[in-house]
Amino acid sequence: MDRPVSARTHRRIAIGAGAAPAAAESWIYGRHAVRAALANPLRRWRVLIALAGHEAEAQALVAGALARQRDAADPVRVLDRAGIAALLPAGAVHQGLALRVEPLAEPVLDALLRQPMTGPGRQVVVVLDRVGDPQNVGAVLRSAAAFGASAVLIGRHGAPPAGGALAKAASGALETMPLVRVVNLAQALDALKRAGFWICGLDAAAATPLSALDLGERAALVLGSEGGGMRRLVRARCDHLARLPTHPAQPTLNVSNAAAVALYELFRDRVLQDAG
Amino acid sequence: MDRPVSARTHRRIAIGAGAAPAAAESWIYGRHAVRAALANPLRRWRVLIALAGHEAEAQALVAGALARQRDAADPVRVLDRAGIAALLPAGAVHQGLALRVEPLAEPVLDALLRQPMTGPGRQVVVVLDRVGDPQNVGAVLRSAAAFGASAVLIGRHGAPPAGGALAKAASGALETMPLVRVVNLAQALDALKRAGFWICGLDAAAATPLSALDLGERAALVLGSEGGGMRRLVRARCDHLARLPTHPAQPTLNVSNAAAVALYELFRDRVLQDAG
Repeated sequence: MDRPVSARTHRRIAIGAGAAPAAAESWIYGRHAVRAALANPLRRWRVLIALAGHEAEAQALVAGALARQRDAADPVRVLDRAGIAALLPAGAVHQGLALRVEPLAEPVLDALLRQPMTGPGRQVVVVLDRVGDPQNVGAVLRSAAAFGASAVLIGRHGAPPAGGALAKAASGALETMPLVRVVNLAQALDALKRAGFWICGLDAAAATPLSALDLGERAALVLGSEGGGMRRLVRARCDHLARLPTHPAQPTLNVSNAAAVALYELFRDRVLQDAG
Repeated sequence: MDRPVSARTHRRIAIGAGAAPAAAESWIYGRHAVRAALANPLRRWRVLIALAGHEAEAQALVAGALARQRDAADPVRVLDRAGIAALLPAGAVHQGLALRVEPLAEPVLDALLRQPMTGPGRQVVVVLDRVGDPQNVGAVLRSAAAFGASAVLIGRHGAPPAGGALAKAASGALETMPLVRVVNLAQALDALKRAGFWICGLDAAAATPLSALDLGERAALVLGSEGGGMRRLVRARCDHLARLPTHPAQPTLNVSNAAAVALYELFRDRVLQDAG
């Protein structure tokens, strides 16, 4: 346990024993992301790497999660800083913890839409068109969880993998917020419409502020890439285009900030409805 | 112009001629950040590096800014991808443009507070306590500019440098939004109070939602680090502690998202006041 394991040794451990293909596995790092993954009963994991000095924290973390891991004889391995760095992308902020995981089963849109709405008020899904930056997608997952959204949809093409930087930015929300990858985003919006969702695209050039719209009980918020916005076929599916009330000299927000503000606007509305 | 310049050659060019100390210069990269820096009459710059293929865009960008640069004989240099990468931090998303700049003159809090309030409604400053991540600080600057805040204050100790990743995330807002570095954040809050600001700290554990507060005409929003929150002496200066209405299972937001949502709440209020 206290023997430093080289990256090479670890790679053998990580990919040599299981039935799942090694390519499907990834690293989740950072305290919140690792803690949430270990607390998720649906998350299968293989080994927890702890920076020397974090052994006790690591052992405490895995204590409740042992039944779901594959390498029960030695679920925690201790590495020095260079050893962890060799396993992770350059600059990864791991906070002393990295977990080798299998991917979660990907949620399917049709199944999601068949689920009954939970709780009173509005059901909101966030739809990301051409948002490729893993930190942005992760931050959107986090805000979606914080404000009670039901799911985040993203086009499969160009979407970042659901681990690493995305999981770190999601700060645990990757374990709880469905991230639905769809082949065709325009068709997914059609499916949402059939399920009673109003589709609202965010566009800094739109005439209507988001706060002026009544999006009803089921709403999909569509956000495009910062450079190119929504694609034409995605934009054409929108029932509404709305803007956030930004200053003309600096009209655009980072996409994760725009998503957070828009979700807050819809959630704020819902809170007021619940209270009224 | 079309001759690739090695990193070593360029370094000589960049630091060899000017009066300012080389350590004060930095790189700004990314299309929006470079464009805004070149459009800022107060920003002195030395050389614009363009990725091969971006020469025309680079020449067009500098055309209006030549009077303020130091190396007028050759203000644009063209490098290949490896040449640019050698100048910038690993993984920097430069979008083909990098500008060598002198720092802006740092705004001083006292001078800022003596300025008359502009326009109707509320004046808001954002105060960041122990927020060290340059991307977060840059994103806060961007949201502050988008929602019409007056300044961003940050403790000098541990604050990221005002260039590079911060400028990229600010997407141009570093040129327009005062970033005030103060030695003692608690004393700065005292100065804000004397100038008539109500101090409101954001805290996920607070009882009062931000939307329930009336912060008057001058408000300071204080945000702490994600890990440790506000320091005790900073928190003690707050007239109010308020939360954003997040889900108990995922109560916290990324600090830049929290700032964006809080600014939106205050700006939304102001828009409604202006309309009413």
